[in-house]
Amino acid sequence: MLPKGTRDILPLEKKRRVYLQNTLAEIFECFGYQPIETPALELFKTLSGKYGEEGERLMFKLLPRGAKFEQLSGLSATEMGQHIEEALRYDLTVPFARFVVDHRSELTLPFKRYQMQQVWRADRPQKGRFREFTQCDADVAGPGGMVQEAELIQLYDWAFERFALPVEIRVNHRSLLQGLAALAGCPDRFVDFAVGLDKLDKVGWDGVRADWAQRQLFIDWERISWMSLGDTAWSAALERYKQHLSEEALAQRGLADLHELDALLHAVPPKHAQLRLDPSLARGLDYYTGCIFEVSALGVELGSIGGGGRYDNLTGLFGLPGVGGVGISFGLERIALALEQLHLFPDSISAAPPLLMAHLGGEAGLRAFTLTSQWRRSGRAVEFYPKEDKLRKQMEYADKSGIRWLGMIGLDEIQNNTLSIKDLKTGIQKVFGQLETEAIFDFVNA
Amino acid sequence: MLPKGTRDILPLEKKRRVYLQNTLAEIFECFGYQPIETPALELFKTLSGKYGEEGERLMFKLLPRGAKFEQLSGLSATEMGQHIEEALRYDLTVPFARFVVDHRSELTLPFKRYQMQQVWRADRPQKGRFREFTQCDADVAGPGGMVQEAELIQLYDWAFERFALPVEIRVNHRSLLQGLAALAGCPDRFVDFAVGLDKLDKVGWDGVRADWAQRQLFIDWERISWMSLGDTAWSAALERYKQHLSEEALAQRGLADLHELDALLHAVPPKHAQLRLDPSLARGLDYYTGCIFEVSALGVELGSIGGGGRYDNLTGLFGLPGVGGVGISFGLERIALALEQLHLFPDSISAAPPLLMAHLGGEAGLRAFTLTSQWRRSGRAVEFYPKEDKLRKQMEYADKSGIRWLGMIGLDEIQNNTLSIKDLKTGIQKVFGQLETEAIFDFVNA
Repeated sequence: MLPKGTRDILPLEKKRRVYLQNTLAEIFECFGYQPIETPALELFKTLSGKYGEEGERLMFKLLPRGAKFEQLSGLSATEMGQHIEEALRYDLTVPFARFVVDHRSELTLPFKRYQMQQVWRADRPQKGRFREFTQCDADVAGPGGMVQEAELIQLYDWAFERFALPVEIRVNHRSLLQGLAALAGCPDRFVDFAVGLDKLDKVGWDGVRADWAQRQLFIDWERISWMSLGDTAWSAALERYKQHLSEEALAQRGLADLHELDALLHAVPPKHAQLRLDPSLARGLDYYTGCIFEVSALGVELGSIGGGGRYDNLTGLFGLPGVGGVGISFGLERIALALEQLHLFPDSISAAPPLLMAHLGGEAGLRAFTLTSQWRRSGRAVEFYPKEDKLRKQMEYADKSGIRWLGMIGLDEIQNNTLSIKDLKTGIQKVFGQLETEAIFDFVNA
Repeated sequence: MLPKGTRDILPLEKKRRVYLQNTLAEIFECFGYQPIETPALELFKTLSGKYGEEGERLMFKLLPRGAKFEQLSGLSATEMGQHIEEALRYDLTVPFARFVVDHRSELTLPFKRYQMQQVWRADRPQKGRFREFTQCDADVAGPGGMVQEAELIQLYDWAFERFALPVEIRVNHRSLLQGLAALAGCPDRFVDFAVGLDKLDKVGWDGVRADWAQRQLFIDWERISWMSLGDTAWSAALERYKQHLSEEALAQRGLADLHELDALLHAVPPKHAQLRLDPSLARGLDYYTGCIFEVSALGVELGSIGGGGRYDNLTGLFGLPGVGGVGISFGLERIALALEQLHLFPDSISAAPPLLMAHLGGEAGLRAFTLTSQWRRSGRAVEFYPKEDKLRKQMEYADKSGIRWLGMIGLDEIQNNTLSIKDLKTGIQKVFGQLETEAIFDFVNA
């Protein structure tokens, strides 16, 4: 029995997660991102006030210990709240901001880090949604230009190519959204405008207009209806924006940034991902200040499997102003679901070694053990049946454990220095010399 | 600022830990162990009562949330204690036992698992000792024989050979300890006898006798003084035990087990580790019931860096009797300390990519970015300076970030399709064709 919303991860799923994480780590490092770790436990005052009222409610807080616990006795809930000292990480962004401030004398900016760690949120558990789950973030903290956005698009492109997962990367810029709000005549109602527009993908234009109306935002939407882009290619879409927003002061930074990004992506176009300019994309409006991204898997209904963007103020809340950055995250759990649904995990990932050495004990057992040991030491995964038993029992064990090949040394094999290997799936059996290691494992790994 | 006893892990240390963990994972899998994960959060009732009074005190417990939190208001400490529902993992053994019981219908026994996860203990923090740290365990749950102990010794042997860390593996057996207690005339005072004897390494015979005396255990130690083995080789030491304990019924299982282990180790002797029979070794007396191991690094003062043994009852506390097993653990933090002190971490582990592509923007910048992208996509780690800047600034950035080589495309290089690479350590500079990728990275990785 486990706490609500938590779960065990069994070998096959764990190995698939390791595959995802190792692949991402390798790619992050090619792009110059370095791994760090922060503790699961943070001071409550570090996390408190950063995630809104709901976040505060869903945060896992630690019970004070020892004498501090005794002191809670008889207090009201509010008074008890003031004695909370520690809580579990709620995301990786706030701890990273705290990290940059704490280690500012050791870090050279721009500092590129990636981090794959668990976070805890006492959300209502749903299918595929847990109270303890893994986040996977890559961020650059410090100065830089649009080349960083181009790199992050390349990183997404390469990662999803490695996973063979078809994706679309949607790109937008806060300043384009602001320019659109101004063009639509409501620059002072920016948040309502953007929050309504963000639903375009789901509810269509009629839905967006209804949403705006409900917010008492009355827009002559004809003035911005040209922004329905459909499948318009990235560069052509950008041209249309340049044309319609050329007079909007608020849009100028966005147009210039995306122009620069366009030049970089022209030089090094994505090879795998579809890129789309999506002016309805909003994401965390109180956090991102420049370019924003969102990635969706094509061919599965999963929602977003990644996203990110540029922000101006990472560390201000911890007393270090002027440090901005740009970053992306990968939704590991959802990517795993997508690969599973589309059968894209490599077949080589298995919850058992390919070969079980069976034996009848005595001299044959000792010989089988010796061979097993030599194979393992040369880096081959082999199981050895750990006691004397009937051959039938040993075959049953292989079968139940998902081991396909059975190695066997009996009396004949001892005399001839040979070894029989049986494919339990096809029934095909072959005899090898005991030292023909390469041939044996070519057969087993075929 | 972080909670007491917790810390951030910076890139170099994180990469060294990844190296340790990946190496161990690879070796575990060669031996047929499969990875699992259990959640950090367990039900309090799962952990409670398993670690003694001190463990209960040092456990990190979660605050109830929402209405359940309100209900604590006004309660006494004892009453509040009854409302605790969740706690953080305190070790990996109890969660593994719970795992085996929860998943017994999905697992085939013997089930071999490894697990590398964090645990939390509110111990007094000390140098190298934290409240959040990583445990690394490999266990077989279910039936099997001495071949499992032999495998675990081989696994230790190979792992420490991979790390090039000289180690001694001490081996003992609970039944030998019981036989010695009987021979010394105090079979009914076994725990006091063993706890005293366990200190032999640290305090010598005089110390052990003083300890026994203090426990009112008066032993004519001459009857067991033959057990001072010093450097006696494994097989010779075992012979001496067989001789002196041949009449002790309690020692018979131990002698038979070690005799079998001796035959297996004769067939496949350790190649790297020193093996020693150490009849003073006790370890968790209420847990282990057969063979026990302990590993120490030679040449550094660190205490134990690993240990384990055989136990009869893994899952009884969770209502599943009859499942025993055998397992070992690696002390990751201490192994990391040992490798650091002895300079045994590979030099290739670095907190920065080897090469920074510098550039002066414009066409040269775009060309440099294109090359960087191609290199990254072919799996090479390269940093790209993310904005236009003076070359001096870019060199400074490389220097501070620990990047040794600086790539550079200027006007000459654009014209000639070349690329200059400078070794910032030696000052040596070479010019390459832009497409001579192999030659460039041979130079950089030399």
